[in-house]
Amino acid sequence: MTVTRTRKIQVIHTLLRAGDLRRLRRTLDRIDDVQIASQADNLDFADQKQLLQLLPAERRAEVIGYMRYESAGRLIAELAPEEAAQLLDELETDDAVDILQQVGESGLRRIMSRIDKDDVDEIEELLAYDANTAGGIMSPNYFAVAADASVGDALAMIQDEEEPPETSFYVYVVDDGRLVGVCTLRTLVISRPGQPIRDVMQRDVVHVSADTDQEEVADIVGRYDLLAVPVLDSTDRMIGIVDIDDVVDVIREEATEDILKMAGAGEELAGTRSFYGSFRARWRWLGAAALGGTAAALSLSGFDHALSQVPALAFFMPVVAGMGGNVGMQSSTIIVRGLAVGFVEAHRIKRIVVRETSLGASLGLLYGLLIGGSSFLMSGGVDPWLLGLVIMMGTAGSMSIAAFVGTCTPLVLDRVGVDPAVATGPFVTTSVDVLGLLFYFWLATQLLGVPG
Amino acid sequence: MTVTRTRKIQVIHTLLRAGDLRRLRRTLDRIDDVQIASQADNLDFADQKQLLQLLPAERRAEVIGYMRYESAGRLIAELAPEEAAQLLDELETDDAVDILQQVGESGLRRIMSRIDKDDVDEIEELLAYDANTAGGIMSPNYFAVAADASVGDALAMIQDEEEPPETSFYVYVVDDGRLVGVCTLRTLVISRPGQPIRDVMQRDVVHVSADTDQEEVADIVGRYDLLAVPVLDSTDRMIGIVDIDDVVDVIREEATEDILKMAGAGEELAGTRSFYGSFRARWRWLGAAALGGTAAALSLSGFDHALSQVPALAFFMPVVAGMGGNVGMQSSTIIVRGLAVGFVEAHRIKRIVVRETSLGASLGLLYGLLIGGSSFLMSGGVDPWLLGLVIMMGTAGSMSIAAFVGTCTPLVLDRVGVDPAVATGPFVTTSVDVLGLLFYFWLATQLLGVPG
Repeated sequence: MTVTRTRKIQVIHTLLRAGDLRRLRRTLDRIDDVQIASQADNLDFADQKQLLQLLPAERRAEVIGYMRYESAGRLIAELAPEEAAQLLDELETDDAVDILQQVGESGLRRIMSRIDKDDVDEIEELLAYDANTAGGIMSPNYFAVAADASVGDALAMIQDEEEPPETSFYVYVVDDGRLVGVCTLRTLVISRPGQPIRDVMQRDVVHVSADTDQEEVADIVGRYDLLAVPVLDSTDRMIGIVDIDDVVDVIREEATEDILKMAGAGEELAGTRSFYGSFRARWRWLGAAALGGTAAALSLSGFDHALSQVPALAFFMPVVAGMGGNVGMQSSTIIVRGLAVGFVEAHRIKRIVVRETSLGASLGLLYGLLIGGSSFLMSGGVDPWLLGLVIMMGTAGSMSIAAFVGTCTPLVLDRVGVDPAVATGPFVTTSVDVLGLLFYFWLATQLLGVPG
Repeated sequence: MTVTRTRKIQVIHTLLRAGDLRRLRRTLDRIDDVQIASQADNLDFADQKQLLQLLPAERRAEVIGYMRYESAGRLIAELAPEEAAQLLDELETDDAVDILQQVGESGLRRIMSRIDKDDVDEIEELLAYDANTAGGIMSPNYFAVAADASVGDALAMIQDEEEPPETSFYVYVVDDGRLVGVCTLRTLVISRPGQPIRDVMQRDVVHVSADTDQEEVADIVGRYDLLAVPVLDSTDRMIGIVDIDDVVDVIREEATEDILKMAGAGEELAGTRSFYGSFRARWRWLGAAALGGTAAALSLSGFDHALSQVPALAFFMPVVAGMGGNVGMQSSTIIVRGLAVGFVEAHRIKRIVVRETSLGASLGLLYGLLIGGSSFLMSGGVDPWLLGLVIMMGTAGSMSIAAFVGTCTPLVLDRVGVDPAVATGPFVTTSVDVLGLLFYFWLATQLLGVPG
């Protein structure tokens, strides 16, 4: 079937709004679960609930399984606990856990008390892991055979399983709980059924432990081109697998997180978050910037005589500070992202700092000339050449300082173990404001002969 | 084997620097191709070349295949064409193509003339596609059987293939070149060999066309939890598959691109790019900001009397404009990322704009109070209460305007077909500088009774 870009068509929303339930039912019959899920992600709760009712019972869990965990979690939390439990029962355990991780404490208890006893234990075990670790995203369902099994045994196991795990392409070989090898389904197919699995399995299996950070898991799966990676507990026993579908979700999620954190806008896309939640996500970052800006204002108060004599100096303050801020954010963005994807290595740091700083200085000279030149249009009271020179050198200086601070800040934060994506932004803008403008006014007092 | 986070250990660089080639050879014997590749990515060309020579001939192509395409491309371009051709010959065609896409025109010709005739045709066909489309990232190697084949025929084909494609988990069913179905390897294993494949295959196959944008391909593979998606040409014939390994690379690449574009720092991580290349990637964005800043400076020049009477107004200009810029970037980051991941939908736009603007206004009131309050520490010549009020309302106004502009700009750019990640930043900072400061000075003339 041809899949047009899912996010562009919002036919479900339109038909729900129009109240045309007959046409909506026909549409739902025609499009697949994934497309329904993708549109359901962006509906209000009331619409999601109505949509769920319109779906045939057997499609409901499927659609929820394809929704984003956050929106599926919100929906599940709002449903009657019996209905929620029944839907979750039909999902793969790891998907159910990912969704339940989004549900609050009391809702969780109500739903769990209605889930099948066997499943509850498995779910509770998985819920015990941090949601951002291999344990938190793994699935406990995978094919495993004992080390003394034959190829035929392994094939028979795959053939007999009525509800095969999502990833049926690897068979893990375990000896007394310990992972000793792995076999692809293809290897099984090309081997003789009588062969011991020991003889055809691959021995060195790349694995992770339950507390490995999900970002690192994604890194390893991506680097090694794996379809799934086994997860071991602290005693080296195999307890689950993380498969590539989950890794794809992790990579997207972490990229969004990094982008939003850089701008101090929280860690997740708001939209459906409460107003106060969004406010809280942002106020801290802005508070740091406000403090810094106020500090800059106060630190400049000594220069009020210079300003009242040469007001033109003031008009160029925002552009001098702003150009510094821009170039500083460019440098720090490159470093923060470079650290995230493993591009910034210890042995290159000196070179990177020198390079970024000279880049900032060169760009500073270029734009200093332009901005300084434009000041000829408005000087008054002072030698326009001198004023232009102050503005030019001020811009160049502010941009050089900014590139240096913007490069070093995330490197230092990373070294001392603070997430550079979070703290770099406000620190760089603030210190660039203070340092850049102090330099600018110091230049003015030196070159224009105005009192400091 | 336990894989510690690959990017933390740089033993190859250390041993190369120390010239300890004996220990280096022993180390290379001990670690796997992926780890070597991951370290090689971050070496200089001279070091990479030396490393390649130290590796046993049979590992060289493997290591290059696991390197990032950009660094592998640079390395291949610098090697003797014979050596490059030989290494590429050993790689999967799609990997070879991804690497060759990084090599310049003349180098490409020299290498291509030395590659095996059969492979050249295949490679040239793939190189003809835009690198950012399904055609540019697809692999031409996959399992396909005719519609009248049996399950046993399909299994036999998989068993007989000596160099199986990377993704041996799907068998596609084609009828006269046209894709009619797909079968997982598991389905083949659980079916009787005599069954016609027609009876066990899945009919509705999600597919993409050769010119589908790679971001959309990634979207579809991720949404449908596929391991590979078939690619059709304009006449609906199957010509290749994009597998999930490539999709993982695409997602990472696009996330990096979006982050860097937001900061106006180009589209790829510099570091290894030339100094001039980095300069060029950034100057345009900064130029737009410089123009805007200069425009802001000039548009304020009418307020010079106000400034010479109340210099304190000047000191708060950077923080008034800066807080606006910060909140504006928060809003636009959320919208740009929301557009990229399909979170911002047409029917929600009005609500999003109202929400972001009121968030900006609330945060503006909070920080306006704080920053305005701090002005009591330095007023002189005017009523401190009035000055505080100007600064408070100026900050709140600038932040409200900024949230509104920051939200609307990417939405409008997206609507008119301009990439919002590229153009949002400079437009938002600039217009916020101009509008925010004009409002601030207008307030000052109204409330402080100073001349305009």
